[in-house]
Amino acid sequence: MSLLIAEYQTQRASLIGNDRSLRRENLTAGLRSDKEFEADRIIRKIRALEAETIWKEEHPSIPHPFPGMEFLTGRSIIVKTQLFEILSKMPKGALLHAHLDATVNAEFLLQLALKYPAMHVRIQQPLSPTNLSTNLPEFKCLPQDQFTDQGSLTDALYTLGSWVSLHDARESFAPELGGKEGFDRWVIGSMTINPSEAYGTHNTITKIWQKFASTFVTSTGLIRVAPIWEEYIREFFLTSIADGISYIEVRINFLYKFMYGADGRENVTHREWLVAVEKVMTEVKAELAQQGRAGEFVGVKVIYSTIRFITPEELKWYLEDCIALKKEFPHLIAGFDLVGDENVYKPLIYYAEALLRFRERVEKEGLDIPFIFHAGETLGDGTEADENLYDAILLGTKRIGHGEKGIARLTSSMPMHPLPAVLNNGVPVVLCSDDPSVFGNMGLTFDYYQVLAASEITGLSTLGALARDSLEFSTLNGDDKRAALTEFERRWNEFIEYVVVEYGK
Amino acid sequence: MSLLIAEYQTQRASLIGNDRSLRRENLTAGLRSDKEFEADRIIRKIRALEAETIWKEEHPSIPHPFPGMEFLTGRSIIVKTQLFEILSKMPKGALLHAHLDATVNAEFLLQLALKYPAMHVRIQQPLSPTNLSTNLPEFKCLPQDQFTDQGSLTDALYTLGSWVSLHDARESFAPELGGKEGFDRWVIGSMTINPSEAYGTHNTITKIWQKFASTFVTSTGLIRVAPIWEEYIREFFLTSIADGISYIEVRINFLYKFMYGADGRENVTHREWLVAVEKVMTEVKAELAQQGRAGEFVGVKVIYSTIRFITPEELKWYLEDCIALKKEFPHLIAGFDLVGDENVYKPLIYYAEALLRFRERVEKEGLDIPFIFHAGETLGDGTEADENLYDAILLGTKRIGHGEKGIARLTSSMPMHPLPAVLNNGVPVVLCSDDPSVFGNMGLTFDYYQVLAASEITGLSTLGALARDSLEFSTLNGDDKRAALTEFERRWNEFIEYVVVEYGK
Repeated sequence: MSLLIAEYQTQRASLIGNDRSLRRENLTAGLRSDKEFEADRIIRKIRALEAETIWKEEHPSIPHPFPGMEFLTGRSIIVKTQLFEILSKMPKGALLHAHLDATVNAEFLLQLALKYPAMHVRIQQPLSPTNLSTNLPEFKCLPQDQFTDQGSLTDALYTLGSWVSLHDARESFAPELGGKEGFDRWVIGSMTINPSEAYGTHNTITKIWQKFASTFVTSTGLIRVAPIWEEYIREFFLTSIADGISYIEVRINFLYKFMYGADGRENVTHREWLVAVEKVMTEVKAELAQQGRAGEFVGVKVIYSTIRFITPEELKWYLEDCIALKKEFPHLIAGFDLVGDENVYKPLIYYAEALLRFRERVEKEGLDIPFIFHAGETLGDGTEADENLYDAILLGTKRIGHGEKGIARLTSSMPMHPLPAVLNNGVPVVLCSDDPSVFGNMGLTFDYYQVLAASEITGLSTLGALARDSLEFSTLNGDDKRAALTEFERRWNEFIEYVVVEYGK
Repeated sequence: MSLLIAEYQTQRASLIGNDRSLRRENLTAGLRSDKEFEADRIIRKIRALEAETIWKEEHPSIPHPFPGMEFLTGRSIIVKTQLFEILSKMPKGALLHAHLDATVNAEFLLQLALKYPAMHVRIQQPLSPTNLSTNLPEFKCLPQDQFTDQGSLTDALYTLGSWVSLHDARESFAPELGGKEGFDRWVIGSMTINPSEAYGTHNTITKIWQKFASTFVTSTGLIRVAPIWEEYIREFFLTSIADGISYIEVRINFLYKFMYGADGRENVTHREWLVAVEKVMTEVKAELAQQGRAGEFVGVKVIYSTIRFITPEELKWYLEDCIALKKEFPHLIAGFDLVGDENVYKPLIYYAEALLRFRERVEKEGLDIPFIFHAGETLGDGTEADENLYDAILLGTKRIGHGEKGIARLTSSMPMHPLPAVLNNGVPVVLCSDDPSVFGNMGLTFDYYQVLAASEITGLSTLGALARDSLEFSTLNGDDKRAALTEFERRWNEFIEYVVVEYGK
């Protein structure tokens, strides 16, 4: 090698090194163990190998697969990789952004609802093989005196718009629509988005938001029943813990003022919702403690949410409600948010005065209810929705939900995602699953997988930095945060050991 | 309005104002005339109106149109808008990045080639209605003693691989393949990319690059003939000027060491190519001067290019060739570049030593041949191709061709493009058409249209700033640059006047 090229290589290494030093994981580069560097090399090797093997196979339904391809199409390949298997065992830190009504597997939810005789279903148009995907079921819990003798949704004698017991509707679902299995496919399809919807029939932002919103309308009918809700949140906590998540800040939509009770009456108040959260959390913690796994679960907090289509006057009621709940459950309420399609519903500025008064009030009362706003979940530049980012910042938001342009799961593949550039610039980022039951990305393993697929720079230590930041930017208080981080480090080292021992040969 | 909200609105305006002040067009905000602000308002009004009218109509072949949608699909709507009509009259400054072999309408090129009896065509497989898009024509200029009596490509007696006169091939093209019109469609289709190829059959980066590269193989066969070439570059200059472009830095691929002469011999040297450029440029200038339009065309320079699949040893020959041409045509050679798919061919580091020695040599000889490299035209993060950005910078590139991740025309719609974020951060950007004949975006009007469609912040003054920067970041020397900018301002004011007078009622 000539001197000329040797000097060039030195300059080059220094330029690239300076650039890389901006990345979050390199803040702790000196502190990483040799074993972590080894595990990182192993992971990179498996990623490279699988990119050339499992991702190069042609699949009849997936013409040109590649790691980081649009999620819904690539999902079936991801789950077959060794990388996914390894990442499923990684401790993930916190899940800070997820909407409760979309956190539990739709099939599990349906099975759960089937156990309750009070749960009913109806349709407004006759079902046919061609309208199954648009003729959606509506669910409701009825008190016993309102049960009807309607036995089937698909019988010629069925009166459109009348309620049928969920159990009976399933048992009697017409064979030409697939019978019981057809019923399950129909209901689950109404709560999830499949690739042909995301990339075909609904391939614009507006259309996919419509489909997306409809999945919530359907699933809320099943979830908003106290005994179901309790089992639902238990399942959410347990599956999250199984995925390596040790702490959750979940958004609960408090738009409806009541939930249904077991008796089919719509009279369960918001405070009772939180009592149930507390109860299940305590039970799950006790269960883990008994198994010697107490450290795996720090707990759950709730981000109080309502939808950005209400009036400022209505918002005041919810803000008061949030304050009252915070006073009763100070350890449970983590913050306040407004959710819903930013392009269609109201911008933050529409609510600015109510939000400012809330902030004054909260300060005066010495309460800790930060705003944790959705903003920037839009592709527009300089639109009213885009300006939510300015208002979120001015109103003092603690974190920004989304915050960047590009909604990865829906509109594109990972190579088009701005995340790698954001990571290269050292911006702290937290991975969240958002609405996993709608897209089938339960837990956080899929999200970590996609991040690893999107960049050659990103490695195991990047994932560790992301997981640490999820705890760092949580609303956990000082002591709890330190304890959670200490426990994370213990599990992280175990995980590194596992990677090296199991895959290092 | 309460004091609380009034204060908030003041803070908000100041935050947004500070953010906007980073944008290039706001460096000159104080210098803009009232008339420019008025023209800007008019343009925004038309944009908003057309977004709600022409872009909301449903078209049988375009299910959900929107401004800024993927270019090849949206093109037919763009050309119908008033905005496009207006922008076609805007002075554009310089075109700094375009590959000569893809700058002139494919139909024009075919008509031109048909005038030369020496131009021949052949195929290697029989043509059929189903293989027209993959069974590509090959073109070559033959000396008269090699003309054959083969009369038709589609005759049963045609010998595969033998040359047929282009004229005869067209006249005798089988009726079941569309006759003469079918021949034209076949040839033009081989030099262009249509929406179904870009978004359907070739919808991966690798496949679209293959199709893209094949268009060059085909068109080069027609262009690389001295008399055709001369008319070709004349058409390129004239259509650019008609589109409002006043100065061009064009990349010419010098990979082939000779071009064919009118006699069908492959013996026209690189210096003769440049003699032709100079001749046509001088003629076009004289023509414009005669019409009193001298200011509309500053001239043309050439970026010497070769392809990044050669060896470093071969590169040395081209670098020497470039130096020799620079010495003979100092005003014509603007810089040096290496082109071709970065993901497939060699990275810059592979050539680093030869390029460093070239730089030393050029400095010692007092020549001005900056590198103007392609880099960053890849979606990878941390790949070898992605690292070209580091080498381009270290080797002292004057500009970076592409430089960002995301190849807008092929892979996505404008709302997914990083450009708005780049503009918001005040990074100087120059719009270029790159390979307009392949995609049908002749001139720069389409490019300016897409930029205007991608952001509500972007307005007429942004487009003006982009056009000024195209001259600013050209290789024009001080005096020529100042003169070009002065002339630009004169035309810009004329254009503003036109917008206000024609559309201001």
